[in-house]
Amino acid sequence: MLITLTTDFGQKDSFVGIMKGVIAGINPQAHIIDISHGIPPQDILAGALTLRHAVRYFPRGSIHVAVIDPGVGSARRPLLIEWDGNYFIGPDNGVLSLAGENVEPTHIVHLSNPAYHLKRTGTTFHGRDIFAPAAAHLSVGVSPMALGEALGNFVKLALPEVARQDRSIEGEIVYIDSFGNLFTNIREHDLTGLPRNKLDIVVRSVTIRGLSQNYASAGVGEFLAVINSWDMLEIAAYKDNAQKRIGAKIGDRVEIALAI
Amino acid sequence: MLITLTTDFGQKDSFVGIMKGVIAGINPQAHIIDISHGIPPQDILAGALTLRHAVRYFPRGSIHVAVIDPGVGSARRPLLIEWDGNYFIGPDNGVLSLAGENVEPTHIVHLSNPAYHLKRTGTTFHGRDIFAPAAAHLSVGVSPMALGEALGNFVKLALPEVARQDRSIEGEIVYIDSFGNLFTNIREHDLTGLPRNKLDIVVRSVTIRGLSQNYASAGVGEFLAVINSWDMLEIAAYKDNAQKRIGAKIGDRVEIALAI
Amino acid sequence: MLITLTTDFGQKDSFVGIMKGVIAGINPQAHIIDISHGIPPQDILAGALTLRHAVRYFPRGSIHVAVIDPGVGSARRPLLIEWDGNYFIGPDNGVLSLAGENVEPTHIVHLSNPAYHLKRTGTTFHGRDIFAPAAAHLSVGVSPMALGEALGNFVKLALPEVARQDRSIEGEIVYIDSFGNLFTNIREHDLTGLPRNKLDIVVRSVTIRGLSQNYASAGVGEFLAVINSWDMLEIAAYKDNAQKRIGAKIGDRVEIALAI
Repeated sequence: MLITLTTDFGQKDSFVGIMKGVIAGINPQAHIIDISHGIPPQDILAGALTLRHAVRYFPRGSIHVAVIDPGVGSARRPLLIEWDGNYFIGPDNGVLSLAGENVEPTHIVHLSNPAYHLKRTGTTFHGRDIFAPAAAHLSVGVSPMALGEALGNFVKLALPEVARQDRSIEGEIVYIDSFGNLFTNIREHDLTGLPRNKLDIVVRSVTIRGLSQNYASAGVGEFLAVINSWDMLEIAAYKDNAQKRIGAKIGDRVEIALAI
Repeated sequence: MLITLTTDFGQKDSFVGIMKGVIAGINPQAHIIDISHGIPPQDILAGALTLRHAVRYFPRGSIHVAVIDPGVGSARRPLLIEWDGNYFIGPDNGVLSLAGENVEPTHIVHLSNPAYHLKRTGTTFHGRDIFAPAAAHLSVGVSPMALGEALGNFVKLALPEVARQDRSIEGEIVYIDSFGNLFTNIREHDLTGLPRNKLDIVVRSVTIRGLSQNYASAGVGEFLAVINSWDMLEIAAYKDNAQKRIGAKIGDRVEIALAI
Repeated sequence: MLITLTTDFGQKDSFVGIMKGVIAGINPQAHIIDISHGIPPQDILAGALTLRHAVRYFPRGSIHVAVIDPGVGSARRPLLIEWDGNYFIGPDNGVLSLAGENVEPTHIVHLSNPAYHLKRTGTTFHGRDIFAPAAAHLSVGVSPMALGEALGNFVKLALPEVARQDRSIEGEIVYIDSFGNLFTNIREHDLTGLPRNKLDIVVRSVTIRGLSQNYASAGVGEFLAVINSWDMLEIAAYKDNAQKRIGAKIGDRVEIALAI
């Protein structure tokens, strides 16, 4: 079974490599794919969104480990959630909570069984001590329920809501990628029934008229809006960095209105 | 068969991980190696040079995917080129064009067969929707010609030329690595017949006398020139960052002359 | 057998990918794990510490390649050291020297046998030309002694020492991770016999009272000290970047004293 990793550990240190060493010690055949280790430090929402939009591109039955975990070693619980035949492992702080969309979980397990932790655990790196071992044991056939006791609920992240009215939509920037493209919380279905070429899309000082089919339909440096690979409305500047151009930040308001 | 990936997607986001998920869904046994995901955004020349110099170190028959693709979703064609038993997959914008050196391609294929695309494709991420699936299908034995229709040509990148005269050579900086070392377009064979220890190499305000055998033959912080691992003339500063020291940029002129 | 890689090559360039291509050419089944490619350029101590603390999390018999190698191509020798059934490959500049803790090496080998180098070697990239091939050949069963001649010693790195007195300890910062957490050379056993909640820990302008169990036991932005995942005393700021907050640097003194 495939194991994926999503963390805020960055590329500088050995944290990710050590998790892979632990997995290889338990399951030498494990196939591991990095989804991202560049989640901004402690940014649980960015991790949760990244995971939600990645899952559908991995084979059913994959084990997705997400470690954005500022509360490591405190009372927050280490967790496994099974949704729709996929497994999600990480801290109970919301980072896993968007991945199931609105499906009911099959299992929620508190990873409390020390038999499936590293022999010697610490309080600062449960990615190594608890989450990597859980994923590896699961990948060799250990049952989810063997990893700890069943739970009835888990921490759910509140995504900022999109306000849709007859002739307008209000959302916000929820993610910024390494190209400086601005991902909003406005999803494709929020636009249903609106004429895509007659919308004014406003973020900070920029107004964009209409949705584009692709980046290259704008001139170099021009702002444009597309439905991006996460099926979200995205604001970009062709061959340029929209974030730097307008100093955009997570949480900035984005307004869409029917052009007059 | 081995699949390699070269992109400008960076390490922050999930783009690369998602491509690997798509590949694993089609070929769970696929062996994937990352060549680089740190190509500067939209820098087709850097991607093409990176690919050209990497290919020889991979087994014959490898499938090399390169996605530096500012024109994604526009009229530019998704492409497969076969050269010398190796496969190259990416947009038809020149990023693949240096990899074959001067060999004639065996196949040029427009990746137009939707049966080998993801079921639902978008206009902003053909790495996921077209290139990763093509590589994965090829790796399980699908024939190149099944992926689309044959083409007669492809977009070729013009590398800046080296001007060689009797007693001098003029080239330019074409790549800068993460150490700040300056790679020029002057290749080892351009220096044939010139006395390596009697050359003056000039870039911006710096003049270097003679080629060194290795970095450590200069003092700490001193500038030096070597034939580097890409067989190119490189200007470096020992245990220092040459790029930062002199503010060098891609395109800066490099002049070599016989010392008087 | 598992091969790990630790380098200062960064993520921007193709150096790491090319090493993996070379390994795949010799052993297509090789299982490679990246420990880190973000060691600061030429920082041999950071590489050596990273390797020392990673080794215990990998299966016995792993082959650990470390390339922080400013002296590449000069007189410094390419090396293999076997300790306790694990193999270490890299330049003889100290980068391997902490990995064995205080165990005697089983083998020390100068990687001088050209039959196990790439056919054409250069003077700037022994990671590709010598170290990757050595690891790959070892992983398919070539004996360590076949790779070159036995040596009697190797370059040992001097770790800054911890000064322990009755009521105080003096150490220094030896590593800073990507969260800005400050790793000291003070290890857990250095604190034996001292009351953990009655210590004053001083670095630059900051005084911390007592050791915490985990990051979340401090308020957001507050400084704290923990025994971290390397079993070292670490100074951090909860959900913040301690390095940036106080401008800390490698080598900064850290003083611990019994609180009065």
